Amino acid sequence: MDKDNLSAVLHAKGDLRLVLLKMHSVGICGSDVHYWQHGRIGDFVLQKPMVLGHEAAGRVVQVGSSVTHLKPGDRVAIEPGVPREMDEFFKSGHYNLSPTVLFCATPPDDGNLSRYYKHNANFCYKLPDTLTFEEGALIEPLSVGIHACRRAGVTLGSSVLICGAGPIGLVSLLVAKAMGASQVVISDLSAERLAKAKELGADFLLPVKREDVPQEMARRVEGMLGGQPQISIECTGVESSIQTAIYATRSGGVVVLVGLGEEMTRAPLLNAAIREVDIRGVFRYCNTWPTAIAMLASKHINVKPLVTHRFMLEQAVEAFDTARQGLGIKVMLKCDKNDQKP
Amino acid sequence: MDKDNLSAVLHAKGDLRLVLLKMHSVGICGSDVHYWQHGRIGDFVLQKPMVLGHEAAGRVVQVGSSVTHLKPGDRVAIEPGVPREMDEFFKSGHYNLSPTVLFCATPPDDGNLSRYYKHNANFCYKLPDTLTFEEGALIEPLSVGIHACRRAGVTLGSSVLICGAGPIGLVSLLVAKAMGASQVVISDLSAERLAKAKELGADFLLPVKREDVPQEMARRVEGMLGGQPQISIECTGVESSIQTAIYATRSGGVVVLVGLGEEMTRAPLLNAAIREVDIRGVFRYCNTWPTAIAMLASKHINVKPLVTHRFMLEQAVEAFDTARQGLGIKVMLKCDKNDQKP
Amino acid sequence: MDKDNLSAVLHAKGDLRLVLLKMHSVGICGSDVHYWQHGRIGDFVLQKPMVLGHEAAGRVVQVGSSVTHLKPGDRVAIEPGVPREMDEFFKSGHYNLSPTVLFCATPPDDGNLSRYYKHNANFCYKLPDTLTFEEGALIEPLSVGIHACRRAGVTLGSSVLICGAGPIGLVSLLVAKAMGASQVVISDLSAERLAKAKELGADFLLPVKREDVPQEMARRVEGMLGGQPQISIECTGVESSIQTAIYATRSGGVVVLVGLGEEMTRAPLLNAAIREVDIRGVFRYCNTWPTAIAMLASKHINVKPLVTHRFMLEQAVEAFDTARQGLGIKVMLKCDKNDQKP
Amino acid sequence: MDKDNLSAVLHAKGDLRLVLLKMHSVGICGSDVHYWQHGRIGDFVLQKPMVLGHEAAGRVVQVGSSVTHLKPGDRVAIEPGVPREMDEFFKSGHYNLSPTVLFCATPPDDGNLSRYYKHNANFCYKLPDTLTFEEGALIEPLSVGIHACRRAGVTLGSSVLICGAGPIGLVSLLVAKAMGASQVVISDLSAERLAKAKELGADFLLPVKREDVPQEMARRVEGMLGGQPQISIECTGVESSIQTAIYATRSGGVVVLVGLGEEMTRAPLLNAAIREVDIRGVFRYCNTWPTAIAMLASKHINVKPLVTHRFMLEQAVEAFDTARQGLGIKVMLKCDKNDQKP
Repeated sequence: MDKDNLSAVLHAKGDLRLVLLKMHSVGICGSDVHYWQHGRIGDFVLQKPMVLGHEAAGRVVQVGSSVTHLKPGDRVAIEPGVPREMDEFFKSGHYNLSPTVLFCATPPDDGNLSRYYKHNANFCYKLPDTLTFEEGALIEPLSVGIHACRRAGVTLGSSVLICGAGPIGLVSLLVAKAMGASQVVISDLSAERLAKAKELGADFLLPVKREDVPQEMARRVEGMLGGQPQISIECTGVESSIQTAIYATRSGGVVVLVGLGEEMTRAPLLNAAIREVDIRGVFRYCNTWPTAIAMLASKHINVKPLVTHRFMLEQAVEAFDTARQGLGIKVMLKCDKNDQKP
Repeated sequence: MDKDNLSAVLHAKGDLRLVLLKMHSVGICGSDVHYWQHGRIGDFVLQKPMVLGHEAAGRVVQVGSSVTHLKPGDRVAIEPGVPREMDEFFKSGHYNLSPTVLFCATPPDDGNLSRYYKHNANFCYKLPDTLTFEEGALIEPLSVGIHACRRAGVTLGSSVLICGAGPIGLVSLLVAKAMGASQVVISDLSAERLAKAKELGADFLLPVKREDVPQEMARRVEGMLGGQPQISIECTGVESSIQTAIYATRSGGVVVLVGLGEEMTRAPLLNAAIREVDIRGVFRYCNTWPTAIAMLASKHINVKPLVTHRFMLEQAVEAFDTARQGLGIKVMLKCDKNDQKP
Repeated sequence: MDKDNLSAVLHAKGDLRLVLLKMHSVGICGSDVHYWQHGRIGDFVLQKPMVLGHEAAGRVVQVGSSVTHLKPGDRVAIEPGVPREMDEFFKSGHYNLSPTVLFCATPPDDGNLSRYYKHNANFCYKLPDTLTFEEGALIEPLSVGIHACRRAGVTLGSSVLICGAGPIGLVSLLVAKAMGASQVVISDLSAERLAKAKELGADFLLPVKREDVPQEMARRVEGMLGGQPQISIECTGVESSIQTAIYATRSGGVVVLVGLGEEMTRAPLLNAAIREVDIRGVFRYCNTWPTAIAMLASKHINVKPLVTHRFMLEQAVEAFDTARQGLGIKVMLKCDKNDQKP
Repeated sequence: MDKDNLSAVLHAKGDLRLVLLKMHSVGICGSDVHYWQHGRIGDFVLQKPMVLGHEAAGRVVQVGSSVTHLKPGDRVAIEPGVPREMDEFFKSGHYNLSPTVLFCATPPDDGNLSRYYKHNANFCYKLPDTLTFEEGALIEPLSVGIHACRRAGVTLGSSVLICGAGPIGLVSLLVAKAMGASQVVISDLSAERLAKAKELGADFLLPVKREDVPQEMARRVEGMLGGQPQISIECTGVESSIQTAIYATRSGGVVVLVGLGEEMTRAPLLNAAIREVDIRGVFRYCNTWPTAIAMLASKHINVKPLVTHRFMLEQAVEAFDTARQGLGIKVMLKCDKNDQKP
């Protein structure tokens, strides 16, 4: 489909609020790799080929006639989830929970790993000149960290346990620090990941082994911090790690479940309940892009070190293979032949 | 010990804030029966004989020299948990979570099922003339319902599932309605208990059987309400009921765990997490007595129908046996020989 | 314009989410009378004739092709404010604050006091069979009370001062009680209005005179309640009444400003500040219709006594004159010639 | 009084929870100067000579018999306000609002600018070895900033206007940044103070003149930030500055009143109300010492640059004169003859 045809799309009925984007940078997420390898995630099953990609930034090429806050040439970061209906969830500020959400690269909705892409203008956010397209694309994973830390209630002086030092654990670390956490312990199986966490500001590293006993791990966390953390952010989805998070958290505190594990979990809910440790999940994010842009623009958060690999769109298979092997942290695909800069 | 000796107690070092009470009415709680039968609840193990009773009201006989808000003759309801230290929990408004709490009839602290009893004056609340001593004693179980409904965030128009129609389920029902819940479904194994719930204002009754499938029960709740409840208050502690509560609750809603079950629970935490259904426990209560008195005095909540049996203190064994057999709802012991009125 | 022409409107570009309504009952608000008399309210100035009316209910005649939750024949209550853009306010759950809101009978937007009217389907709420059209229309003023009480944080056991017993004071009274307020004092200049408040559940009546001294009034409120109210809801906009509300409120409490007064107010902000009494305004409401329907349907709130006068649409001038003279509480216009029932 | 006599004090009746401190560093606050010069602040009037000082740190010399968390030799920061009663304010986490608070150097309570001083142990917080006594003393003014920013709800990405770049404005700036504010504008009459604010991290400086028009100032703030701030923290108490803060704040935002002005203020409450801009005051602080220690120890906040002058206790008059003339930011008095280090 050429650009003229694409632009025609915008004038079809009901598309007055869309913008047509020339894509620039798209990060690969674990879920992209999973759909590529397995054709499904849980109940979301591919019925037909689907374009991948939902960590993305590009440049506005054309705007629908109702769009007033963007114009051709604007560089934007894309929020991939767009509610289709003004339902109770949207009206009350939790649009991420709306069952009507269109979400890039979740069946049946296509993603934006492509040359051109159209999206609801209200979910495209203008990037200041000082931010790169890649920073724009990284707002998507950063948003998971922001939403998790908000749900956790991280604030000035919070002490925090983060379970798992993968991309989500690392962005949660960056965000927790920026929100005022005084001390962060981060755990992982991999010494390499822990080293990266150290580099990004973790105060304490907790190497874990599969056979570790949750209550013992909880005591180690307490020992490191000189007290139990008020907040634990669980990013692995592993049952024993969820148990550790509950045991470790101070009475009256919060455990946030970010990692996705099995359908059923065996957990010490009694222990959590009688100590009023709240257990809260996260589903993606909402209202995070403006916040993320403000934090990146003001240099309070730096996500650039997360990008460890870059590939041209033509090298997509190689890029996905790199991501599949868990090499580095974030693999970035460059969709614009004429501009391969970050 | 006679009254003169008792009053001497108040003048011993450090007791300037105590009041000496002549006890009037003390309700029997399931935990009292459990200590009586088993000598322990979980990690709380009796090392020596212990006075039972923590749902109580009495009359002030003497006050310590620092007490200004009470005087001899005042009728008071007793909050049984008193923090010993001004620690971080107390200072931040969650004194129930302080590990320093003295709690009536939890080892090693004696309860107040006795003729006379002394207590911190700041945790004795004056009853208006219009309230009976029994209403004062019932503030303790009512407080569990208040704390649960507060933790749940019950508010105007909430639709609520309450699992279990025992005393705690029933007080949660009364409180939820008074806080503005528009619809309450209550479940129980016992038709008799459900009938009582109906009488107290439940909108829908959900009879359950041990073999019921949680997801199926959740669908029945949704069918009754014409939509999922925003809030579920689980008062049984039974694993399948906890599972039902999670499946039943609307995305973005809250499950409050009040019932105490096994140490480990198998639960659909993934389902809760990705729908942002919060799981919150309760540990007793805090800041509930003034609220309860205000609600009872203004006739918005009526707890009188909860009392189904009364015994004189001399008949304590018979009273405990009645409670042990689960007969009726609340068994009340009358400690004042000269005043057996409610 | 006949019905066929009207229905054509729905199929014009961009109107896929509209519904065409046959109007049934429309209440007259003070603002309607003000526009009628003065052609302006503050900065909102009529530039051309405008249809009045925004407290309304009607029956669905036709639905746009994107509408799935409504069908012809459905009886609906109309939320008059509809945000045009998914901006930061809408996304974060405060769509009432969006500067893009279309609002019935606020220039330049027409109201719905007419035979037929079209509206965004997402802001039309289906009425259960048990509710009348008039109850549906009254959800609009009731919503002001709901939003005010939410902003105030009314909850179980709250003691509340309401300044002003006009329609908004009265709905605030109804809502505060339904949210668990234990005691409500209501003030007004008019004995007649206070009598109505008594009838609707006010616990204490505070007659005021223009020359009353705010600090003295505050003491009288404290005397009536046996303590300062945690919450004051100011519905008059009068400076001395705002001052009374601040002085009267307990430290750590909330004053909600509902009444609209002068641009500048002389107020004891120092007194409020050092006692941490929050001052919060309200702008219309958001997320109130489903709550209101739930409360009306469950009979927890009864708004029917608010309607004191009814007129046919043809008698509109007479109806407005009645409202202008401040007779009764709510004047209702009946727009359907064939159905004049409530 | 010699040390032996002082220690005897601890064993007097009711003092089992006190600690005897050898004072080290005490900062001079504006209120100290005001009491020195005028003998009163508002309704607080000196009836007899009073020891000044409430920004203080010292070393534990002796502990009462009930004290378990401190021991002789511990270095502590002192929270100067101690509630005497476990009243409703204390129980609900707002002990600063309790009318029973004893507060250092507020009549009739003596302050701690002395060689030795005794205080409730629960309000003495152990300093880690890495913090100086002066940092400990500065926790008091820092606490005002923490409490103000908490009341304001500063969080990740907040844009903030701070009116006034005196000591309180500056600590609010430090705290706002540490809580995640992306942009802070700070205003002041003095170019020198603004320069200090710049040094401490302010993003934008707004020089003001007494004759500036509030609405115009609000527009300048909006211009600087590229949008209205969500939060304004007013630290001057000046009427025109309060007006500016209201006009400047984004709809749905918060104005916090920290500066103390006249009893009555003329303010655009209507503008605030219809845009749902909340107006919240602060009274001192609560629950800030542990947070402050965590933030200072983790080097997220640096208060050391605030100390511009140091005097020995013998030079107290000179020290107070320096503070009275508004020279520098914080004047520190050194109470220990043998240890004059920071």
